[in-house]
Amino acid sequence: MTDLSATTGVTDRPSGTAQQTESAAPDPILQFLDRQRPETPCLVMDLAQVRDRYRQLRTALPDARICYAVKANPTPEVVGELVGLGASFDVASPGEIDLCLAKGAAPESISYGNTIKKRRDVARAYEQGVRLFVTDSAADLANIAEVAPGSRVFCRVLVDNKGSRTPFGRKFGCSPETAAQLLRRARELGLDAYGVSFHIGSQQLEPAAWEHGISAARRVFEDCAEHGVRLRMVNLGGGLPAGYTESAPPLADYVRRIEESLDRNFGAQRPELLIEPGRFIVGDAGVLRSEVVLVSDAVAGDRSWVYLDIGRYNGLAETEGEAITYRLRTSRDGDPRGPVVLAGPTCDGDDVLYQRTRYELPRTLRGGDWVDLLSAGAYTASYSSVGFNGFTPLPTYCVDGDEQP
Amino acid sequence: MTDLSATTGVTDRPSGTAQQTESAAPDPILQFLDRQRPETPCLVMDLAQVRDRYRQLRTALPDARICYAVKANPTPEVVGELVGLGASFDVASPGEIDLCLAKGAAPESISYGNTIKKRRDVARAYEQGVRLFVTDSAADLANIAEVAPGSRVFCRVLVDNKGSRTPFGRKFGCSPETAAQLLRRARELGLDAYGVSFHIGSQQLEPAAWEHGISAARRVFEDCAEHGVRLRMVNLGGGLPAGYTESAPPLADYVRRIEESLDRNFGAQRPELLIEPGRFIVGDAGVLRSEVVLVSDAVAGDRSWVYLDIGRYNGLAETEGEAITYRLRTSRDGDPRGPVVLAGPTCDGDDVLYQRTRYELPRTLRGGDWVDLLSAGAYTASYSSVGFNGFTPLPTYCVDGDEQP
Repeated sequence: MTDLSATTGVTDRPSGTAQQTESAAPDPILQFLDRQRPETPCLVMDLAQVRDRYRQLRTALPDARICYAVKANPTPEVVGELVGLGASFDVASPGEIDLCLAKGAAPESISYGNTIKKRRDVARAYEQGVRLFVTDSAADLANIAEVAPGSRVFCRVLVDNKGSRTPFGRKFGCSPETAAQLLRRARELGLDAYGVSFHIGSQQLEPAAWEHGISAARRVFEDCAEHGVRLRMVNLGGGLPAGYTESAPPLADYVRRIEESLDRNFGAQRPELLIEPGRFIVGDAGVLRSEVVLVSDAVAGDRSWVYLDIGRYNGLAETEGEAITYRLRTSRDGDPRGPVVLAGPTCDGDDVLYQRTRYELPRTLRGGDWVDLLSAGAYTASYSSVGFNGFTPLPTYCVDGDEQP
Repeated sequence: MTDLSATTGVTDRPSGTAQQTESAAPDPILQFLDRQRPETPCLVMDLAQVRDRYRQLRTALPDARICYAVKANPTPEVVGELVGLGASFDVASPGEIDLCLAKGAAPESISYGNTIKKRRDVARAYEQGVRLFVTDSAADLANIAEVAPGSRVFCRVLVDNKGSRTPFGRKFGCSPETAAQLLRRARELGLDAYGVSFHIGSQQLEPAAWEHGISAARRVFEDCAEHGVRLRMVNLGGGLPAGYTESAPPLADYVRRIEESLDRNFGAQRPELLIEPGRFIVGDAGVLRSEVVLVSDAVAGDRSWVYLDIGRYNGLAETEGEAITYRLRTSRDGDPRGPVVLAGPTCDGDDVLYQRTRYELPRTLRGGDWVDLLSAGAYTASYSSVGFNGFTPLPTYCVDGDEQP
């Protein structure tokens, strides 16, 4: 595996305090924006970059089955591109299954990766040909056994999410002991006890974090083996980063740590591998263009307020708690900068993007100017509200950098 | 004004820790749910209760112009009912203006209540006949003067939000001194310097809180009067509560405190009044029906996890920070209860509704049972994501309790 830092765009970022002007954003997207001048706000995806990312990961982890986490960006064109590349899919709902099948994915390429599923949705997936399911509870396992007989199941274990910008808390996963019990029970119920999954938290900035999950998986493998159940698969989950304001290590660092951890825990008994990248595949491939609505010195203080036509309720849900700090590019870059608070357009006091995080923007910025949020391809458009405050959902446009003149 | 506590449903709630079984929810909604058995999750609104609430407020504040805050629930039928009752409307966007006009509202009944507006959206509103605008910044005021000449403007002041379950922070409003400057400037620019608005925070549980805003308004009135600008209107904003798990005072308490504050600050020079209720009008008129997806003892601990098919991303945005704690009703009420964590259906660790707040639900609850969230008519459906995790937005059905057999 080679050092992909030069092309992944997730390393050597100016860290922390968001001095953000570098023109790392892709030209095809800028060309589209310049030529088409679409109404703002809007998200523009470059399919060429999606393909590049998939291939990078394919090369770096040649033996892993790559299940794209559809929830990160369910734009049909994006899913279609990945079908064409031979990707598999991690889905969260019947709607995502329908989307993948409609774009030509084979049912065998789909992993139903949500531990929270209605019994009738499991049945529906099974009727559509899906045969791979995650679980983490006795109730869900019983449903799978009854309405998706003989399917492969893997059990999600709960692991430490330290180092993640958006950790999962305790909502998903069980202890390794419970996982082993559930997987043994799965075999008793006629299911194929396939393996173990974990998620070390999204936008994970610490490559060593996977050791938490891989060592937990080994414990479940051992426990099951002692009871005659031979597990075969480790699902490495998501967590690979996109390029926000903070510095993130290159892909090669992640892969090296994962390989080391697999060697340490499994040695020559290397299991089959799955991985569920979402943000890593689509994050850096998207630019979100917004317009400045207003610049205001609302309260006598040290910072002016810049209000954009994009906010927490029409695409920037991940600014909650200022967890994800997007790099910015503006139509006034080059002019002297000053500290700002950034907020969205709704009549909602929580629709503030960055107040604690120190952003600086050109002091000349005013209503009608544009601000681009870079690396905004993941977890944006699909979070948009249907119409909070009467604002319409964020539209997505796709361009293809490989087809540009 | 009479004590409306018996009918407002916002008083004498069992407070704090959510022992929630009383059947305060309206029968027409239950009848609809029993007969139609719509797919879950869904929101059902009783238009009769919307009318009742509007009339209660009309009676309690006979001199105030009631501007329904459309953002609370933009269901066309709800807006249509309020048009029929002669309500005015507080709107946040061009989309909400279009909605009100489409439902028959007169342009003169519309107040453009968002301080954050694009210049071209102000122009569009003016072309549609809107002549009343809020402002809180020089840039916005200049836009209004240029593209909505001669319009009435009121200035929003920033006030203390203590006592509010969902405070506004510092996003909106300016100091009384700045407000007076802006309103004087407004007159210089040929606008009608009309008055002052404030918002003491949504779901405000302290009736005395309005004093913060009314006294600030008086200071702006005095400051302007000293410079020969006679303001005429005080906009009391929103803040009146709906009936969640915490105990809220009856409407009469709010009205008494507001009247006292107006007397204290304005005496016989009583200004024209506007009020912008949203939650108060529609909150208690809606029930959100959800289905239990799964009950899981996910982690060895003291609470089981109950996963619903409704969560933070398809309607329950106001459970962020557990700010709004809905009363619950289930299909197993009457059975022994135990403590639970409540979570939504997505693969998102933040999609947890109540973890810190102690809820108890029937221990017999299992997948396929239903859970109703009561008083869920405000700030739910319009917040739904377009399709996060592939789940469809929350649909709204309307019934009319006055037309039921």
